[in-house]
Amino acid sequence: MATDTDFHVFDTTLRDGAQREGVSYSVADKLAVARLLDEIGVGFIEGGWPGALPKDTEFFARARTELKLRHAQLVAFGSTRRAGVRVEDDPQVRALLDAETPVVCLVAKSDVRHVREALRTTLEENLAMVHDTVAFLVRHGRRVFLDCEHFFDGYAADRDYGVEVLRTAFAAGAEVGVMCDTNGGMLPMGVGRVVADVRTRVEGRLGIHCQDDTGCAVANTLAAVEAGVTHVQGTANGYGERAGNADTFALVANLVTKMGLPVVPPGCLTELQRVSHAIAELANIAPDEHQPYVGASAFAHKAGLHASAIKVSPELYNHLEPEVVGNDMRILVTEMAGRASVELKGRELGVDLDGHGEVIGRVVDRVKVLEADGWSFEAADASFELLLRAELPDAPPPLFELESYRTTVEHSGDGQVMSEATVKVHVDGQRVISTGEGNGPVNALDNALRQALVSRHPQLADVSLADYKVRILGWKGGTSATTRVLIDTTDGVGEWTTVGVHSNIVEASWHALVDALTYAVRHR
Amino acid sequence: MATDTDFHVFDTTLRDGAQREGVSYSVADKLAVARLLDEIGVGFIEGGWPGALPKDTEFFARARTELKLRHAQLVAFGSTRRAGVRVEDDPQVRALLDAETPVVCLVAKSDVRHVREALRTTLEENLAMVHDTVAFLVRHGRRVFLDCEHFFDGYAADRDYGVEVLRTAFAAGAEVGVMCDTNGGMLPMGVGRVVADVRTRVEGRLGIHCQDDTGCAVANTLAAVEAGVTHVQGTANGYGERAGNADTFALVANLVTKMGLPVVPPGCLTELQRVSHAIAELANIAPDEHQPYVGASAFAHKAGLHASAIKVSPELYNHLEPEVVGNDMRILVTEMAGRASVELKGRELGVDLDGHGEVIGRVVDRVKVLEADGWSFEAADASFELLLRAELPDAPPPLFELESYRTTVEHSGDGQVMSEATVKVHVDGQRVISTGEGNGPVNALDNALRQALVSRHPQLADVSLADYKVRILGWKGGTSATTRVLIDTTDGVGEWTTVGVHSNIVEASWHALVDALTYAVRHR
Repeated sequence: MATDTDFHVFDTTLRDGAQREGVSYSVADKLAVARLLDEIGVGFIEGGWPGALPKDTEFFARARTELKLRHAQLVAFGSTRRAGVRVEDDPQVRALLDAETPVVCLVAKSDVRHVREALRTTLEENLAMVHDTVAFLVRHGRRVFLDCEHFFDGYAADRDYGVEVLRTAFAAGAEVGVMCDTNGGMLPMGVGRVVADVRTRVEGRLGIHCQDDTGCAVANTLAAVEAGVTHVQGTANGYGERAGNADTFALVANLVTKMGLPVVPPGCLTELQRVSHAIAELANIAPDEHQPYVGASAFAHKAGLHASAIKVSPELYNHLEPEVVGNDMRILVTEMAGRASVELKGRELGVDLDGHGEVIGRVVDRVKVLEADGWSFEAADASFELLLRAELPDAPPPLFELESYRTTVEHSGDGQVMSEATVKVHVDGQRVISTGEGNGPVNALDNALRQALVSRHPQLADVSLADYKVRILGWKGGTSATTRVLIDTTDGVGEWTTVGVHSNIVEASWHALVDALTYAVRHR
Repeated sequence: MATDTDFHVFDTTLRDGAQREGVSYSVADKLAVARLLDEIGVGFIEGGWPGALPKDTEFFARARTELKLRHAQLVAFGSTRRAGVRVEDDPQVRALLDAETPVVCLVAKSDVRHVREALRTTLEENLAMVHDTVAFLVRHGRRVFLDCEHFFDGYAADRDYGVEVLRTAFAAGAEVGVMCDTNGGMLPMGVGRVVADVRTRVEGRLGIHCQDDTGCAVANTLAAVEAGVTHVQGTANGYGERAGNADTFALVANLVTKMGLPVVPPGCLTELQRVSHAIAELANIAPDEHQPYVGASAFAHKAGLHASAIKVSPELYNHLEPEVVGNDMRILVTEMAGRASVELKGRELGVDLDGHGEVIGRVVDRVKVLEADGWSFEAADASFELLLRAELPDAPPPLFELESYRTTVEHSGDGQVMSEATVKVHVDGQRVISTGEGNGPVNALDNALRQALVSRHPQLADVSLADYKVRILGWKGGTSATTRVLIDTTDGVGEWTTVGVHSNIVEASWHALVDALTYAVRHR
């Protein structure tokens, strides 16, 4: 069976995955994503389409000097030569050579209808385009993989033509023939049957590329592996057009931990969670908390029932030890969870609650009341820790007492937009008035408040807002909408999340802000 | 093979699905969700755990009078009797009768380790608990289904005990024995093999319940169907603990359109998209735009390459006609898309651009510039339509000219929080100064601006903000964070989305607000 040396994990986050709605990488982003993918040990990283997209041409140029990969080989993506053109005269094919990557992945039509209606050429010319382009690139020392677009739909219409395309590619020197479910309509059983049939009819390494339109991209890929393919294509977090692609992280985790295939080098698997979140950040997409293996909730337990049983034997309630993929088991504090959850959560936060039964009871009650008002501590560990510690004996007093604040945003006649905030607080019994400006009302409040506190708490100078999320609650048919604000704060070393809830977005932000600074002073 | 009369689609959004992080339904929400699920024609709706959760007890009480279901039967969930207790003396079992549902779904342990370590009883007593509870409920006229918790992990540890549990349940009168992959660690091939083996060893209808921890919940469920189960359990949008459950909508769509099983009544399939989004709203979870079949992007095409080919023959680029599941094909306007996309998008918006080649060119350029600054029109059709129409010959002038605005939020000494805004605008050459209050700075601006315009545009009186989303862009390592605001506005009939981008959240909101009101006046 496959081993890490002869099994291909091929990631196309930077090419096919970049077609996801809302994603737009800078060249620097693309270089950073490639480095991260290399850290999880994928064998191939498809970087883009040189010649077609200027950004991708620049990426390959910079990659030559700036990108040092430990595990992966860089791949340039392109198309077979145009119909009726000599391959050496096709500038798009030339651009593939100029990218100077060890590997080139070519896309070719393998569905007779696409050849005739989209490409508008003959079946024979399409085969010639495949042969000429593969042979040309092989002559120039490239490893060549061929993506057979719409392979499965094509197989349904004509079970021979796609096979012809594969044979032609292999005969011309292609190393891999990839069967692509481009429209994503397949199910695992069907993929397995087609792959098994094709395997008996061609000589050469077969690969699989699945889209998630039936919600089966990962399963379809694994079914193809079970049927004998040894090259799988995926994208980070499944980013891709429409419903997306097969998620590279779920593929790798399943292949290694469920199917026993060591498809990545030792030590790489524990990087999955970190790399997944880092790429989400670069793509500027909020991480999917419910994503298999790497999501913040992937190993989280909510029901009070479970939480209490988990204290007995955790292994009975996880399909895998979270640490294997660099994740951990979080215990959620919610109305459904009871005392056991709070106790476990305290342990997780390093707060020993043994012998503090009454504290646990008060925390559970307090959380229930707050959650009924729209608060949520599931994503705001820092706010929860402050709430928990405030119930402990000899809890410290608040950092300050608020007298009042005022914040203004002004769009003046000359088109300038300015924000300003003034806070009046009492710190250690002393009244402090401080005014700050900012690029928004919350930023201005943040600056004003930190200025009021920084002389007593100099560490606040290094603290800054990392992310800011706003959620309107209960607005459906709602006259009295509530706003929930989550603030991620960083001190350059770590990051923590706090929450605030109020009908006024600024007041909600204020609550989250005060928790953020209090946490920075007390617990960093 | 199965037909709609003898195949069970069992939805547990309101029971197992309610364990998803962040979800908390009111009783009214639960009634609304049940009505929506009935509209897609599921056969069974599991409403909750009466007796264990007060909210669920109330749900079943109100359901008796307030819930009229056309297709579905209501199901109460509960556990087998406690060890060492007579079934008629177990209050939790009593509560199941009091729920007065035609169907009861019981959970039982089927993994020897869980029986011993979590339940702390003997294998024999666990079987007796199953037998007694099933028989008791059947005696009281209930249809009884049995969820075998941790069935697949149990099978791996001891392939006979779970089968014993199933046999015991069927012998006592259970109608369905459900094999649950509670920890979600299975893959489709394994599920198929276990189900095939179990089928040869028990008489009775088998069901499947999958969690998505390997990203295969939908595929695992379909593999079980292919292996002969005729009862599938899922949740709306796959909501559930950890990585979630099998998505009921993907299950139904796949079973009907890919496997040819008419598992829901005629006419129900076209409700999937609407019901999916409505339930997301009730759960107060942003819909997953990339969700198979029902996501806003599920049939969206981004790449310019595709967009132009789609004009030739759409059917070659969709695995299904979007209308079948009540969705539609959206064309995205992005830097990757070219003139063809803008032209198709215009057609979609009812703007005929034939003979306006130069307009298309200007729009493409304008979009590229704006998207480089962080604007995104993919989710903001109304803003895009305004941008497009503004480029047309004899485009109307703006609704007003802004002179200046000012908005304030004050937290006064008495703890009161107040927001106020003043706008100075010129409407039809006339200077208007108007001041409004609100529960936040944007709401106050909205009120002030609408007050300034409503005398000339009375229809604005019926327009209100429906949702408000904020995204901080480029904050990663970013000194100059940009804020993107999306505003959903409604006039009670329809809803439209507008976008604004600026480093100041209030100014960004102002842009989206102005578009929202302009769209209301011009195009509603």
